[in-house]
Amino acid sequence: MTRRLVVIGGDAAGMSAASQARRMQSAEALQIVVFERSSRTSYAACGLPYLIGGLVKTPDDLIARTPQEHRAKGIDVRIRHEVVAIDPKAGSVTVRDLEADREFTEPYDELLIATGASGISPPWPGIDAQGVLQLRTLDDAAEVERLLGAGARRAVVVGAGYIGLEVAEGLVERGLHVTVVERLDAPMGAVLDADMAAGVAAAMRAAGIDLRLGTAVTGFTVVDGRVTAVETGAGPIPADLVVIGLGVRPNAGLARAAGIGVGEAGGITVDDHLRTDTPHIWAAGDCVESRHRLTGRSMVVALGTHANKQGRVAGTNIGGGDDAFGGVLGTAITRFQQMEVARTGLTEREAAAAGFDAIGVLTEASSRAQYFPGAQPMTIKLVAQRGSARLLGAQIVGGEGSGKRIDVLATALWNDMTVAELAGMDLSYAPPFAPVWDPVLLAAGKTAARI
Amino acid sequence: MTRRLVVIGGDAAGMSAASQARRMQSAEALQIVVFERSSRTSYAACGLPYLIGGLVKTPDDLIARTPQEHRAKGIDVRIRHEVVAIDPKAGSVTVRDLEADREFTEPYDELLIATGASGISPPWPGIDAQGVLQLRTLDDAAEVERLLGAGARRAVVVGAGYIGLEVAEGLVERGLHVTVVERLDAPMGAVLDADMAAGVAAAMRAAGIDLRLGTAVTGFTVVDGRVTAVETGAGPIPADLVVIGLGVRPNAGLARAAGIGVGEAGGITVDDHLRTDTPHIWAAGDCVESRHRLTGRSMVVALGTHANKQGRVAGTNIGGGDDAFGGVLGTAITRFQQMEVARTGLTEREAAAAGFDAIGVLTEASSRAQYFPGAQPMTIKLVAQRGSARLLGAQIVGGEGSGKRIDVLATALWNDMTVAELAGMDLSYAPPFAPVWDPVLLAAGKTAARI
Repeated sequence: MTRRLVVIGGDAAGMSAASQARRMQSAEALQIVVFERSSRTSYAACGLPYLIGGLVKTPDDLIARTPQEHRAKGIDVRIRHEVVAIDPKAGSVTVRDLEADREFTEPYDELLIATGASGISPPWPGIDAQGVLQLRTLDDAAEVERLLGAGARRAVVVGAGYIGLEVAEGLVERGLHVTVVERLDAPMGAVLDADMAAGVAAAMRAAGIDLRLGTAVTGFTVVDGRVTAVETGAGPIPADLVVIGLGVRPNAGLARAAGIGVGEAGGITVDDHLRTDTPHIWAAGDCVESRHRLTGRSMVVALGTHANKQGRVAGTNIGGGDDAFGGVLGTAITRFQQMEVARTGLTEREAAAAGFDAIGVLTEASSRAQYFPGAQPMTIKLVAQRGSARLLGAQIVGGEGSGKRIDVLATALWNDMTVAELAGMDLSYAPPFAPVWDPVLLAAGKTAARI
Repeated sequence: MTRRLVVIGGDAAGMSAASQARRMQSAEALQIVVFERSSRTSYAACGLPYLIGGLVKTPDDLIARTPQEHRAKGIDVRIRHEVVAIDPKAGSVTVRDLEADREFTEPYDELLIATGASGISPPWPGIDAQGVLQLRTLDDAAEVERLLGAGARRAVVVGAGYIGLEVAEGLVERGLHVTVVERLDAPMGAVLDADMAAGVAAAMRAAGIDLRLGTAVTGFTVVDGRVTAVETGAGPIPADLVVIGLGVRPNAGLARAAGIGVGEAGGITVDDHLRTDTPHIWAAGDCVESRHRLTGRSMVVALGTHANKQGRVAGTNIGGGDDAFGGVLGTAITRFQQMEVARTGLTEREAAAAGFDAIGVLTEASSRAQYFPGAQPMTIKLVAQRGSARLLGAQIVGGEGSGKRIDVLATALWNDMTVAELAGMDLSYAPPFAPVWDPVLLAAGKTAARI
């Protein structure tokens, strides 16, 4: 008898799950239907800032796989179809065909919710004006292009987190005068400690960005339906284009309305097999809460890499296998022009908030042997638990070749290593790649000595 | 009462130990004397190929710290002093002052042997001719410069390991016609599996190097005391300059003559505290054997990074602290022009030789999101144990940004991870740094699926 998997959402998590379930089960055993409300599947939203900046040449570059390609692999993808209700008792979903403007009911044996997240959009007066947008979709990117083509010269980016930083870089690259408004006292203030964020602020200002820290947006000045300024507690900032980069919230409303459990952080609650609290209903990607491996707490982390992993785990389990998602460490990386910024685990502030007796130690290091051409300065901050010397987190700000070293520290965290043990590890060394003490070892040794 | 530490050898291990012991003990408590037979201390031999190639501008760039600087830190460094005998019973060493040409006896309370290693120099007829050299010291580099200045046009590098590769690159950079002669069937044949070494061979040939594999050197043609050709089983190869790059052997003769234990691999036997089998005598660096963490076997690994770590451990213990050297994984990295080559743990061949039931899986990946400018192809080979799925080793050959990923795999090996667990790790992702599945995760997932 053919079973039927219905997937809500055709982006990273949904399509990874569908593809993995397809690999595990034949079309005779498992029918797979994906409903996607937009007209696209599987595109790299993370690349949008670089499309704006010109590093990525065309929107097509960001499309990993088209609906047609998925269909050719035996996945029944229906674009422009929005699931508007889930009925767990009946085992069905209500679907709206956005083109035909009609609704119908679709039964499922297994259901995967992969509804993603939406950009946070505060109820500021004027936020719906033309020229104020999020950069979440290819349509958003097209709208930015249109505004640039229409002569926009002054851009304001609201929020100095990952997206804010990347969008600001792209707009500077395009020759705009860019102001970044941030409520906190530092760029990346929610994800880096203040001592590390200082370097980011300096780099942004050196690039000509007008960085306004500790500044709250209150609304927008709108003339003839178009934005002309961003209003803040410290006065208005003229703007032809405003990009809101305040992070995202899980799209958990559909699940909540169906009585499926949603956690305190606002995401759908799942176990490590990506099962919700409701039989035959699974969830994966930006819409769920993930367990932080160090704090044990549930949190929302909207990142393509987790969405893909979770989709694969869900697809394996739905397909009859047994796989578990191991949790998250909060690892992240970005760059601003030549400066690389990365973090994993807990910042010193986060560690304290989680109840750890922690210290943070900064180490200045070089990406290569100091005598080698291209050696770049970098700062590593390690956070470790007093007493046990257990590594709790790491932050890196530095030149080319520094950021990806965060993965070594993430691997160390994954394995509950102490900084003393870390300092003795056999990492690779040659002059074009590292000093004889790799920055990671140097930082670990210095931190171990301080505990 | 003042104790006295005598250190034999003033390079990486010796000076690291002396510096660390100095940090831990005052000059009143511990007198530290270092005997170094050359006229230099603490220079970066690993940088010599890049001095030849011109990437490193002057020999001074390679000198980490001069004897004067060490003396200013309270370490009594005596250059041009060679220790010629150790008397463990008397607790003294016999020292030859090479300048004054006299010998004297020096007592010690603790003795550290850090005599390093010497380049392997087979008993080939003509190997002492002018124009045939190793690249082990700044004097060697000066001799290469002299030969280039005197019009050398044809160079032969004997051995296609790390040093051979790096020297060949440097000489190509200087415009020489370069032939590399290698006894094995592949470049890096002792440290990479054949399927990975193929890429290295291709890159060398693409750079115009005449690569002669499976070719044994038998001697040198010498005219008027100068080399004119390298003789091989496949005929002579004309040469104005020959660099021997066949690896090194520990300088363990002094220890052996004093009855100190030397292992099967030819290095001084030490425990994890860097103690030899003889009371109050310690050893560290290229002259000792280290424990391989996966096989448990003792091996010789001559690398500055180990020498520094071991020196520090020995210095801590001599200074009254307690530190242990955690062993080695055989992690190494180099590059040939734009191609990066790295390894850690066991190759498939080494794993089989060590008695593991192992499989090796190759994965093609991209260093960045494929749509991102500068994305480079790379090949990762993972070696894992059947059944347990435990990671046993990794090899990487690829473009810029690929090699240093070996450190993530070394950290995974250090912690006995399985490839399945590795595939689920929270590694950093952003388009300029990785595809949504980092190459390490991709390779781990593919390998896990094959077990």
